Amino acid sequence: MGKLRIRHLLVAGGAGFLGSAFVRDRLRADPEILITVLDTLRRPGAGADLDDVGEDGRFTLVQGDVRDRTVVERLAAAVDATINFASEEFTGSGVADGPALARTDIEGTAVLLEAARKFRHQRFLLVSSGEVYGPLKAAANREEDRLAPTSLPASVRAAAEILASAYQASYGVPVLITRATTAYGPRQPVNQFVASLIASALSGQTVLIAGNGSATRDYLHIDDQVAGIARVLWKGEPGTVYNIGDGVQISGSQLAETVLDACGKPSSLKRLTREGPGWSYAVDPRRMRPLGWDPLVRFPEGIRQTVDWYRRNESWWRLRAVA
Amino acid sequence: MGKLRIRHLLVAGGAGFLGSAFVRDRLRADPEILITVLDTLRRPGAGADLDDVGEDGRFTLVQGDVRDRTVVERLAAAVDATINFASEEFTGSGVADGPALARTDIEGTAVLLEAARKFRHQRFLLVSSGEVYGPLKAAANREEDRLAPTSLPASVRAAAEILASAYQASYGVPVLITRATTAYGPRQPVNQFVASLIASALSGQTVLIAGNGSATRDYLHIDDQVAGIARVLWKGEPGTVYNIGDGVQISGSQLAETVLDACGKPSSLKRLTREGPGWSYAVDPRRMRPLGWDPLVRFPEGIRQTVDWYRRNESWWRLRAVA
Repeated sequence: MGKLRIRHLLVAGGAGFLGSAFVRDRLRADPEILITVLDTLRRPGAGADLDDVGEDGRFTLVQGDVRDRTVVERLAAAVDATINFASEEFTGSGVADGPALARTDIEGTAVLLEAARKFRHQRFLLVSSGEVYGPLKAAANREEDRLAPTSLPASVRAAAEILASAYQASYGVPVLITRATTAYGPRQPVNQFVASLIASALSGQTVLIAGNGSATRDYLHIDDQVAGIARVLWKGEPGTVYNIGDGVQISGSQLAETVLDACGKPSSLKRLTREGPGWSYAVDPRRMRPLGWDPLVRFPEGIRQTVDWYRRNESWWRLRAVA
Repeated sequence: MGKLRIRHLLVAGGAGFLGSAFVRDRLRADPEILITVLDTLRRPGAGADLDDVGEDGRFTLVQGDVRDRTVVERLAAAVDATINFASEEFTGSGVADGPALARTDIEGTAVLLEAARKFRHQRFLLVSSGEVYGPLKAAANREEDRLAPTSLPASVRAAAEILASAYQASYGVPVLITRATTAYGPRQPVNQFVASLIASALSGQTVLIAGNGSATRDYLHIDDQVAGIARVLWKGEPGTVYNIGDGVQISGSQLAETVLDACGKPSSLKRLTREGPGWSYAVDPRRMRPLGWDPLVRFPEGIRQTVDWYRRNESWWRLRAVA
């Protein structure tokens, strides 16, 4: 792992679905690592979701906002690197509000970047999304393609990327960016896409797919997502971007049928909104290969394992769905 | 002007150099127009700079922040269109602070966009900058080129553009974007680039140019800038971007010598920092032609006229330089 010496890591938004999986994975994989999580814990149940690592002496959870310079500077002073998962999209409010998204995703990133600059962090990794490219036009998107996000949550992530790149250009902050495809797996809140389908199916409700079911996405299991992000943090080239995905396009219909089948429910529960094909999204992940990363959990096995988890942990998601 | 009926315009950041020139130009050109300016008036002297139109019954000045949803909604409810000049870069603080830039330029734009969406404005024009393309690589930048800003002020403007485009894509807000080259002209605060050279030259101080003087930019007189922006607002195609510049590249050395000559000072006052060539910037303005716009004030005549103004209005800029 070269000359990098990341012993203590600040994980902003580390109590979310992606962030907490990353934290768990790192604590498991690296006995030397110290991790400080900064999270508002606004998502229902977020505080309890890190209880399993709460006793670990290498782990510290701080409740606070990424926009709070005082808190961020205090934490940043003690660490070697920052990784930012914090996004308003996943706080649970459910309504896309431009100013609120701008505050958490962009201003929050700016505050973290200022601190990373001030305390000369060895790495600053911004967790972004493949949706920053906008809907698929022709071939799967490469990292150098233009950013043309059409949704507000994707647009603020693209904006945060641009700001991060300017910090690299202006001040030499060693910025890395990951653009991942749609994540799924255990502990995904049921207001997020794949988990919502699983919860509906297990409850015997209809599984709703936007459009006529033909639009495709690339679904990546949470374990592979966070392993990919860790690879980029430790092995990626600062100043560059990495697409993370398994390169397999799954249609909405296929996804719904796979979920229903894994839940032991009839495919007749699938409902298409039938308003045209909808949008497809795809990223080309070939830059990940030289980092030694390859997805290990493939579709549809990953979906089946995930459904098993939701079946065994019904109280977990029912509690969070109510909140 | 087609089916557009913009009778009342909200001008955010309308007390700044560009914004106030736009307001003055519109009040002069259009007897029917009503203009409401929203501005924090944080720039030293900003309040007084619109005194000359203060008595005009068609003009209203509101001191307030673009991030204040209550104020913005109250004003937006009464107008047909919004134009946003508000940028932290020009408030006079002088230090590029990422979080502050993100708040004013991006969150502020988001608040205005939400209001434009809610009150179904006929147009939303975001005043951006040619620096969003980043330093010149080969040919002058076209509107479809990728955004690769390297400075913080340019990066937040690029970010605001991306957010505005997402509002167009998601909600059909009729967004227009202008990317202008470096402005100069009367009433430019002397902490901004061209005016700072003029003030130095008139004071008999050295005129400092970054780099070895060979890097080029396109300088556009304020009258042409605001005429171009008005053309785009009334005649531009929503959902698109317009480069505004006169397409003439002027080197830093040429600029300094022109300023010194116009001020009657020896060219020996020119100082180059001699740290390499520095960056050049250039935009291709050909999309402006079909809108019937062409610059009328050319370099170096525009510089000479501007120097005359600064000579005749020494108290104006000396007062603001002190503040």
